[in-house]
Amino acid sequence: MSELYAVRMDVALPPDMDPAAKAELLAREKAYSQQWQRSGHWRSIWRCVGEYANLSIFEVEGNAQLHDILWGLPLFPHMRMTITPLAQHPSDIAAG
Amino acid sequence: MSELYAVRMDVALPPDMDPAAKAELLAREKAYSQQWQRSGHWRSIWRCVGEYANLSIFEVEGNAQLHDILWGLPLFPHMRMTITPLAQHPSDIAAG
Amino acid sequence: MSELYAVRMDVALPPDMDPAAKAELLAREKAYSQQWQRSGHWRSIWRCVGEYANLSIFEVEGNAQLHDILWGLPLFPHMRMTITPLAQHPSDIAAG
Amino acid sequence: MSELYAVRMDVALPPDMDPAAKAELLAREKAYSQQWQRSGHWRSIWRCVGEYANLSIFEVEGNAQLHDILWGLPLFPHMRMTITPLAQHPSDIAAG
Amino acid sequence: MSELYAVRMDVALPPDMDPAAKAELLAREKAYSQQWQRSGHWRSIWRCVGEYANLSIFEVEGNAQLHDILWGLPLFPHMRMTITPLAQHPSDIAAG
Amino acid sequence: MSELYAVRMDVALPPDMDPAAKAELLAREKAYSQQWQRSGHWRSIWRCVGEYANLSIFEVEGNAQLHDILWGLPLFPHMRMTITPLAQHPSDIAAG
Amino acid sequence: MSELYAVRMDVALPPDMDPAAKAELLAREKAYSQQWQRSGHWRSIWRCVGEYANLSIFEVEGNAQLHDILWGLPLFPHMRMTITPLAQHPSDIAAG
Amino acid sequence: MSELYAVRMDVALPPDMDPAAKAELLAREKAYSQQWQRSGHWRSIWRCVGEYANLSIFEVEGNAQLHDILWGLPLFPHMRMTITPLAQHPSDIAAG
Amino acid sequence: MSELYAVRMDVALPPDMDPAAKAELLAREKAYSQQWQRSGHWRSIWRCVGEYANLSIFEVEGNAQLHDILWGLPLFPHMRMTITPLAQHPSDIAAG
Amino acid sequence: MSELYAVRMDVALPPDMDPAAKAELLAREKAYSQQWQRSGHWRSIWRCVGEYANLSIFEVEGNAQLHDILWGLPLFPHMRMTITPLAQHPSDIAAG
Repeated sequence: MSELYAVRMDVALPPDMDPAAKAELLAREKAYSQQWQRSGHWRSIWRCVGEYANLSIFEVEGNAQLHDILWGLPLFPHMRMTITPLAQHPSDIAAG
Repeated sequence: MSELYAVRMDVALPPDMDPAAKAELLAREKAYSQQWQRSGHWRSIWRCVGEYANLSIFEVEGNAQLHDILWGLPLFPHMRMTITPLAQHPSDIAAG
Repeated sequence: MSELYAVRMDVALPPDMDPAAKAELLAREKAYSQQWQRSGHWRSIWRCVGEYANLSIFEVEGNAQLHDILWGLPLFPHMRMTITPLAQHPSDIAAG
Repeated sequence: MSELYAVRMDVALPPDMDPAAKAELLAREKAYSQQWQRSGHWRSIWRCVGEYANLSIFEVEGNAQLHDILWGLPLFPHMRMTITPLAQHPSDIAAG
Repeated sequence: MSELYAVRMDVALPPDMDPAAKAELLAREKAYSQQWQRSGHWRSIWRCVGEYANLSIFEVEGNAQLHDILWGLPLFPHMRMTITPLAQHPSDIAAG
Repeated sequence: MSELYAVRMDVALPPDMDPAAKAELLAREKAYSQQWQRSGHWRSIWRCVGEYANLSIFEVEGNAQLHDILWGLPLFPHMRMTITPLAQHPSDIAAG
Repeated sequence: MSELYAVRMDVALPPDMDPAAKAELLAREKAYSQQWQRSGHWRSIWRCVGEYANLSIFEVEGNAQLHDILWGLPLFPHMRMTITPLAQHPSDIAAG
Repeated sequence: MSELYAVRMDVALPPDMDPAAKAELLAREKAYSQQWQRSGHWRSIWRCVGEYANLSIFEVEGNAQLHDILWGLPLFPHMRMTITPLAQHPSDIAAG
Repeated sequence: MSELYAVRMDVALPPDMDPAAKAELLAREKAYSQQWQRSGHWRSIWRCVGEYANLSIFEVEGNAQLHDILWGLPLFPHMRMTITPLAQHPSDIAAG
Repeated sequence: MSELYAVRMDVALPPDMDPAAKAELLAREKAYSQQWQRSGHWRSIWRCVGEYANLSIFEVEGNAQLHDILWGLPLFPHMRMTITPLAQHPSDIAAG
């Protein structure tokens, strides 16, 4: 069974972070995100315009897998998460 | 140019609404939503689990068209809207 | 696979509700809740002390089933819901 | 007499914490939690999905014992607590 | 064992309440409050200055009794409650 | 004339405070609090269960004296204060 | 001894109020306010620009008198109050 | 001297408003707004996309005139206002 | 033309500020405030009881002058400001 | 197609920033802002009176360009952004 979740991630990096450490951290974040996008679990990621934040849609086995993916984010210690479990909407034309 | 927006719609119907009027209103809402889904402007609609709310993704010409679509919703007078303009995320694997 | 969720339900009934209609509504709510408790899906329900609210733990197949159970609550139109998806905690002694 | 409480604990560790000190702190936290789980006072602990937070159910003698257990948490200085005293719900099938 | 709680009660009566029904309701509220004050369970009640609200201290057997007393308030359907469980403070000179 | 106030004090100490300096600060706080308790101005102090916070009742000459007492708290720079002026409640059995 | 308080009053009248009843209510409110201004207890009243709200400064005997004045306002059942007890500021040039 | 203010107006009409009365009210609102736009005092008005709200810029003599204009809005009893006084920004290229 | 504003200033100094630098900063703040009080622009300043905050009334030429005075405060970088533009209230006995 | 957005930017600089680094940062911010004002994309910028904040109106190609401009602000890491997409208001006299 596959489950859907919307996740908004708001990032707040310490203002005095070392530039090299920051670049390395962001590179790891990007690689990690793309690995899960390629596997099909991180279905969508959009930038929230004007903010250091993204809105993402995950399709995973369930709560545990979602937690594991998010917990493993290199930026996780600097993120505030808003989690919304999703279900099919009765007006969705795909509901048949 | 096409623009993306996330919209969360929270519905609050008056508790004493006439059942027939309510059924007619919800039928119109569903038809209206599906017409915009079929046109490709209302790309996704999900139920927020356990709430009378949905999270939707719109792909429209821009601000004006998004407003016109939302303002025309039969349920609009009973909805609280949260609008988030979206852009491509640099970690999106579709960013090339 | 079974999934866990915490749900807090805050109830606000219209102050001028007909007493007989209210009694009938609450009886249906109780019967509905107990049916899902007996099936094992509504694992726990506690009263939040001093408030017209409860905290409940659900164990269901996933997001869709949780939504269906909550949406079917006779009191649903009078409730504000707070949904928290849960996973096993690494400090849980049951984690082995 | 035994009393029930729901406690949500949100953790925020300083971003520049020494890794060894952090590992030692988390090990002490886990041991402390498991000791109270084994004694039966910390009845349940769940991870809130996607967040550095847990939801726990405590069954203790009363307010004083709950405070002593929480105050003694090695992570207490880094936690924000939300306390909800609980009572039996009249719809609970265990209410007889 | 006796337990202490602070309870803030904010009252919001419907603006169009019948004056006689309101007077009768408030008389019942006062009698109910004074009965529990006389029994020693409702230790203190103060008016929050300038607001239709009170701050009260309860000394009861525990969570269940506090809930029963508050739930039985004639004004309960018109109140918003804030509950704070209390314990002895280590700086209290009565702590010995 | 004597005036009553409820004061909730939420404490947040810097996580990297020197242990000796912290112990000395807390000892001064306790002595300061107990001096005002003994004088009868700090009528009650309770621990808010599970939080680094207290709820206190002050009986003082008026606004100025309350401010002076709170401003003089050794922990004042680390506290967030919530002040509620109190008056006799018409349902208080002591109201005669 | 005289005490100072800032009070912000936000007014929300029912949208369907009878115009004559509303006019009579507002006339009583104005007369009541001016009586306390003339007595010197209601030192200042300003309109908060663009809002159905005022900011007022009261100079009264203490908490009880402030409550009695506010409680007696004809508009009191339609107001939300924010009370701030005031004291002399050390930078006030009138502090001597 | 002319003063600038940003005003956000959020509208909430009663859901059961008579359609003719509503149409008449909205026509008066539009005429009133356009009269002040033509006079140059209501410099800009934009729809907040997806919401029954507008963001407006006013250029008026000062606080009193702004209040009079807003208070006179036919929709005023149904609006929640957020007022932000503005001044020239030092980075404004018009600052010379 | 003279304009009135209420300003609430909440101060938060870094907990590790050098005592001499802090004393010098506060002395400059006091001198600056008193200069504007003597000029008649800073009409009133009161301490908010129990908080590191003040409520002030300014009478200035308009938005620009208010901003310049506040921006120039030595404590400005450590303050959170709440600005309320004021106008004469129709119930003010000075309204004639 | 051109799109309009209101953006409120709240600035919070670290209190211990090096004065020279701060001056250089602010100079770059000003130059950056003025370049986009001159190009016509940053239509208006106003100071929010009494706050380290501005309210700005942007006219850009769409979401992506707005994000790029804001993300490039030298002060971006120190800003909290509030984004409001705008559309023509039906009462705007320019709507024809």
